[in-house]
Parts: sequence; C-alpha cells; structure tokens
Amino acid sequence: MGKPAPISPFAPSSLPTVPEVPGVRFATAEAGIRYKGRTDLLLGVLSPGTQVAGVLTRSKTRSAPVDWCALGLREGVARALVVNSGNANAFTGKKGLETVVITADAAAAAVGCTPGEVFIASTGVIGEPLEAEKFTHLLGKLATDAEPDTWQAAARAVMTTDTFPKLATRKAKIGTHEVVINGFCKGAGMIQPDMATMLCFVFTDAPIDAAALQPLVADNADRTFNCVTIDGDTSTSDTLLVFATGEAEKRGCPRISEATDPRVADFAAALHSLLEELAILVAKDGEGITKFVTVEVEGAEDDRAARRIGLAIANSPLVKTAIAGEDANWGRVVMAVGKSGEAADRDKLSIRFGNILVAHEGERAPSYSEDEVALYMKQPEITVGVDLAIGPGRATVWTCDLTHGYIDINADYRS
Amino acid sequence: MGKPAPISPFAPSSLPTVPEVPGVRFATAEAGIRYKGRTDLLLGVLSPGTQVAGVLTRSKTRSAPVDWCALGLREGVARALVVNSGNANAFTGKKGLETVVITADAAAAAVGCTPGEVFIASTGVIGEPLEAEKFTHLLGKLATDAEPDTWQAAARAVMTTDTFPKLATRKAKIGTHEVVINGFCKGAGMIQPDMATMLCFVFTDAPIDAAALQPLVADNADRTFNCVTIDGDTSTSDTLLVFATGEAEKRGCPRISEATDPRVADFAAALHSLLEELAILVAKDGEGITKFVTVEVEGAEDDRAARRIGLAIANSPLVKTAIAGEDANWGRVVMAVGKSGEAADRDKLSIRFGNILVAHEGERAPSYSEDEVALYMKQPEITVGVDLAIGPGRATVWTCDLTHGYIDINADYRS
Repeated sequence: MGKPAPISPFAPSSLPTVPEVPGVRFATAEAGIRYKGRTDLLLGVLSPGTQVAGVLTRSKTRSAPVDWCALGLREGVARALVVNSGNANAFTGKKGLETVVITADAAAAAVGCTPGEVFIASTGVIGEPLEAEKFTHLLGKLATDAEPDTWQAAARAVMTTDTFPKLATRKAKIGTHEVVINGFCKGAGMIQPDMATMLCFVFTDAPIDAAALQPLVADNADRTFNCVTIDGDTSTSDTLLVFATGEAEKRGCPRISEATDPRVADFAAALHSLLEELAILVAKDGEGITKFVTVEVEGAEDDRAARRIGLAIANSPLVKTAIAGEDANWGRVVMAVGKSGEAADRDKLSIRFGNILVAHEGERAPSYSEDEVALYMKQPEITVGVDLAIGPGRATVWTCDLTHGYIDINADYRS
Repeated sequence: MGKPAPISPFAPSSLPTVPEVPGVRFATAEAGIRYKGRTDLLLGVLSPGTQVAGVLTRSKTRSAPVDWCALGLREGVARALVVNSGNANAFTGKKGLETVVITADAAAAAVGCTPGEVFIASTGVIGEPLEAEKFTHLLGKLATDAEPDTWQAAARAVMTTDTFPKLATRKAKIGTHEVVINGFCKGAGMIQPDMATMLCFVFTDAPIDAAALQPLVADNADRTFNCVTIDGDTSTSDTLLVFATGEAEKRGCPRISEATDPRVADFAAALHSLLEELAILVAKDGEGITKFVTVEVEGAEDDRAARRIGLAIANSPLVKTAIAGEDANWGRVVMAVGKSGEAADRDKLSIRFGNILVAHEGERAPSYSEDEVALYMKQPEITVGVDLAIGPGRATVWTCDLTHGYIDINADYRS
C-alpha cells in the first residue's frame, strides 16, 4: 500500500459522539482480509421489521455485492448488514457471487433471519478473489457481541484510503415524535458517485416503509453524494443504504407509508442535511487534498445542466491543478464550462472566486485585481462561482484540488 | 511560466525535413506577445485559388479566432494564415473580436487579398486581452520575407507548453500525378479535441475543392485527433485547417470537386496517415508524460461506443496514475469501462496489457502472472486492450500517463 497518506487537513478535530439508534447494533473484527492491525469487518444487526431503501452505482461493471443489494432492495426488508474493507469483490466472476451467497448464509445463521434480509458491501481492490472463509467464521461471535454504542468503531471499519472516519447524526420530528438518524460513509478515491457514494450507511428508528423511503433517498442522493467528485472515476461498488428500524413506533410515532405524507417533511430535511454533511466529508478527504473546493453554478438552463457544468469544472485536471497552485486561472473555468456541452453564452458568463468577480460579459472584469484574488486563493477553502445568466438552473458541487499527493497514493495503490 | 518542463522522452530524435508544397510560403517572427527569446508569430502565404476545409472546437466558449475561422470556412477560400502563440485571445469579449478584425485587415494588406481570405489562430493563456498592435506591424515584412522551405521554423512558432515541434509529410497520387501533404500541429495540455486538436495546419498542392475536402477532413479528424486525450480538457481554440493550393493542377493533375471521386482515395489515405502521425505526436508530448499509452477497444456495440469506452479509460486519473506507477491495475480498467455508460457485459469482458491476457469472462485470467505483466509495465509504450465481446465496434485512443510532471506544469502555468 506504500506509505500511508497524511491525514487530510480538513479532517474534523474529533469524531462526533452519536446517540444510539434503537434497533441497531454493531460489532467489528480484524479479519486480516487485506489490511493488518486494523478492523476490516463490520456486522450490523437490525431489529425485526427493519425497512431499507437505497441507491446503487450505475456502473456497467458493478460488483457482486451491489448485484446482491439490488435484489434485496426489491423486497425492502433488512436484518443484517455485512461490510468488509480491503477487497471490493468486484470483477471476480462466478466466485464473486459465491462469496456473496456464502456470506449471506453465514450472516443469516448468525443473526437468525433469511439470506435475503442480509445486505452486503465490499470495498477495496478490484479483481482479486475474496475468500468468504476469511471472515464468515467470525460472524457468529460478532452477532453475539454486537452493541448499540459502537458507531465510531463501525465508521472506522469501512475505511480504505480514507484518512479519517466519517460519521454524522441528526434528530428529526415525525409529528410530535423525535427520531434519530445516524450515518457513516467512506470515500477518498474513485469518486464520482453515479447514484450514491462508494459506501454510505444510514440508520434511523423512524417507522418508514421502504416504498416511502426509496424516493426520499434517491432524491437526496442526487443533491448530495451525486454532487461530489474527487477524480471523476465512478466506483464499481457505490452503495447508499438507509435502514429504518421503526423502533420509534413503539413510542407512539406514526408509521409513514407514503413519501408524500406531509409528516415526513422534517425527517426528509434532516436526512438531506445528514447526507450533505457526509458527502462534504468525502470531498474533504479526497486523495491528496490540499484545498476543499465548492463549485456554485447558477443561471444554467436547468438544474441538471447546472450539475453537469459544475462537475465539468470540478473534474477538470487543469482547474484542479490551478487551485492546487493557488492560481486564480479563471480561463480554465471558462474552458470547462465550454466543454460541458451544456447551453452557455460566452458573452453572458460571469465567474467569481469567493465573492471576487473575476470575469463577466465574456471578458475579464474591469474591477479585477490580481493581488486581491491571489490572496483569496491562499485560503484552504475555495469557492468557484459561475453564473451562466441564461436560465434558472442551479447546483452545488464539492471537490478537492489535484496534487502530487493524489499521484503518490494512486501510482502505488495495488503494490 | 515556472521552470521549463523536460523534453518528452518520446520526442523524435530529429525533426523531419519535409519537401516544399508549391503555393505555400512561411515567415516567423519574435513578436514578444508573451514569450521572450523565441518565435511566437507565424504568417503563411498561400497562392491565389487556395481552397480550405477544417474542423473547429465544439466548445461553447470558443475563442474569437475560432469564430472568425468558422465564417471563413463557409467561403472555403484562403490566401493567408496568421498564428500567434502565448495568448489564445479566448474569453476576451468585444476586444477579442476587434483584435481578430485588425489582424485580418493587416494580413490582407500585407498579402494582397480580402480579410475574409485570412485565417487566424491563437494559442496560449485564456482571458488576457491580446493587443493586435503587438504584432500586426510585423506582417508586411513577413509577407515579403516568406519562403517555401521554412517548415521547421513554422512548426516551432506555434508551440506553447509543447516540448518538441510536430511536423510530418506524405506523398499521394491523384490519378497518375503525385501531390505532397505537409502538416504541423501543437498540443501538450487542455487536450481532448472535440472536432480537431488545439491547432493543426495541413497544406497540399492537390487541386481539391473545399466542398470535396471538407468531408475528408471531418471524417479523418474523427478517427485521429478526436481519438487523442491528454487530460480530458477540451480547448476553446481547437482548430484543424487543411489548405489545398491546387498548384499541382499546373502540372496536369485533375481537379477533384467531389469527395466521392474515386481518384481521391490515395490522397484520403495519405491524409489519414499524416493526421494520425501528428495526433500520436500530440499524445507523445502530453504534459508530464513518462508512458505513451494506446487503448485498443474492440467488440463494443459500435465504433462510437468503442471510442467513448476508450476515452473513459484514457481519461481515468486512476488508470493513468497506475500506468505511471507501472502497476497493471486492470481493476481500474474495469471501472472505467463501467463508468463509460456504454453497453458492457461484465462477464464477457476481457482485458490485456500488450499481448498478456489479464482478465476474461468477468474475472482474473487463469494464466495471469504478476511477474510477466509487471515486466511489461516497465516498457515506455503500453497498450491496454479491451474486448467487450458484444458487437463489431472498435476504436483506438492515444494518451499518456498522469504524473507529478503534469501537476508541476499546471499548478504553475499562469504565474
């Protein structure tokens, strides 16, 4: 794996302590799948009746665990989650599917459910066979040991090249009843989610049926994880799963069975806020990051066009290296808008770095001061603002710069 | 501009000496537009009756000179070509158009033609106003001094971050008459041509009408320059112009007025071969290159799908950094195929590095030898082969690896 990358300068100073989610317990283990001296196996145990919704990578070469989750999401019922890091079980042929089935059988036996109620995610190297026997013998003890207060350990067990664990929590009201939502995720490289991020797991005690949860999850993924890019590379393993144990129903919380139920509004807002926080943490742990970059696009033809323009800017190696070099090279932003293929009028376009207008009406802003903008570019967090001035479309995209650190990490990952 | 990048290890050992093209003369000058101590201005003088065809960037934020060339291509008649390096005259507003008009007027007066017969291309930094007065006073003397044997100097004058000039020549038969085709181009960064490369100029004495030349140029650009990528970033200035002076008609060569004329076949093949050579030279001078990479895709749904898959592989930062690290990380090739969005069947896909099969039928090849493939990855020229095994589509894409050198060059370009 080469020498470990330094911890991202944007890592939070401490991991949040999150409340328990009734009906959710975790245990972790060091299975030694690829890494040594750290946990790489997570078992989540969910109370009977847990509903699940999720979004999965649109990659045409998605992994065996993603295929498995797609089947499980049709039923929308979950009792267990098994996650391993170090090996993605992707492009592993028939053997990959066998590994998934063996894992589901073992977890089902350990937890006391059907294999179809077991959700599985794997992350790490692609194309190496994953031996189920390396970790399935541990699942029985993990099911026994699982505790409701092990969220930080759970968030750590799913990391690969992440330099810090990513964990967040929210409270929301359904009617007058308070529910909790916790989530954790991992990221760092091969990140341009196209449905979800690499791996993100969210848990709530809210009583929400899978059919009502699914559109909330899909819509919020679109406006959060699908607006993050590190390197424009879409993983074979992207998985976002949201589990609703429904335990709050025991406290009198009403059950939500339709996404249009007005009582779900606060929950939906809290879910959005949680997913946005986690998505931003993914960008803040981009491989080799020295600058966290927010791209704000407005005035595009529509929101979809705005997101495509934002991603074209956020994925441009020339924009990303310029920001790494603290160079306000807005000409490269113009280039990226142009290559997006979305409607743009060169002579209406304006561009700002932070609040400093650098270009408008097709040329450099008359007020442009190289000194002022150079000072701004030295900040650790940079906002690139683009106004197309041709429509109502807007989007925000989060990314990081492209640095020597990215090259160091990725020229040497598999060895 | 920072310290100069080292010369690409793939630079040819010497520039070819090319024959003259009857009807074509060049002169160059040091106008000091941006660079010091090197030529940055080129005037090409073309004999009366010269026909011109070309393809231009599809960028939505294309430069003022590209707008100007688009107008000129409608008429298809050329007498002069003015190229400057150091400033792209892109995103320069009304001032940019004024600069182009002043330049065309000055060149027309110098050469003795109409402004509409002057073609203009500018390359370099985006968003800085380009003062026509910096170089238009030189055009009169350049027109007087222009010589037919100055191809190497012409190829040098158009360079920006290129580490070597790119010049090639072919001979072709039209009927029994031999014609010559010379071309030069520049590249290096902001390269994923979407109609043509940044700047490429081709000259022939063949008598071919613009209407017949245009489809030949467009088709060949698609299979050559549009199959090159350095960083996936499409320039605002991409311009490929092919000038046919028709001087060979004086030697009895028949005039071609339709692209379907069977007598044009050998010329078309020679043009393709010339453009392919120049396109490959662009990839071989990719910023920071240490490995030249050919991506060969076959078995895709159709040729268009094959090219998109090839570009997805060639643009993947993870594939490019793995190759830089001499790591046969074929899992990242699988990922890139998957993210392309084109039809693929994970379990039919096979991947090779050079002639070494590394993966097939959705998993690692049984014959896979890490030692064998590791040895191959140490070669300077790497071929990545992908067979989708679902259709007849094929394409070849040329690129380079992604290295610390790219970061060095681009974190520091404008300063």
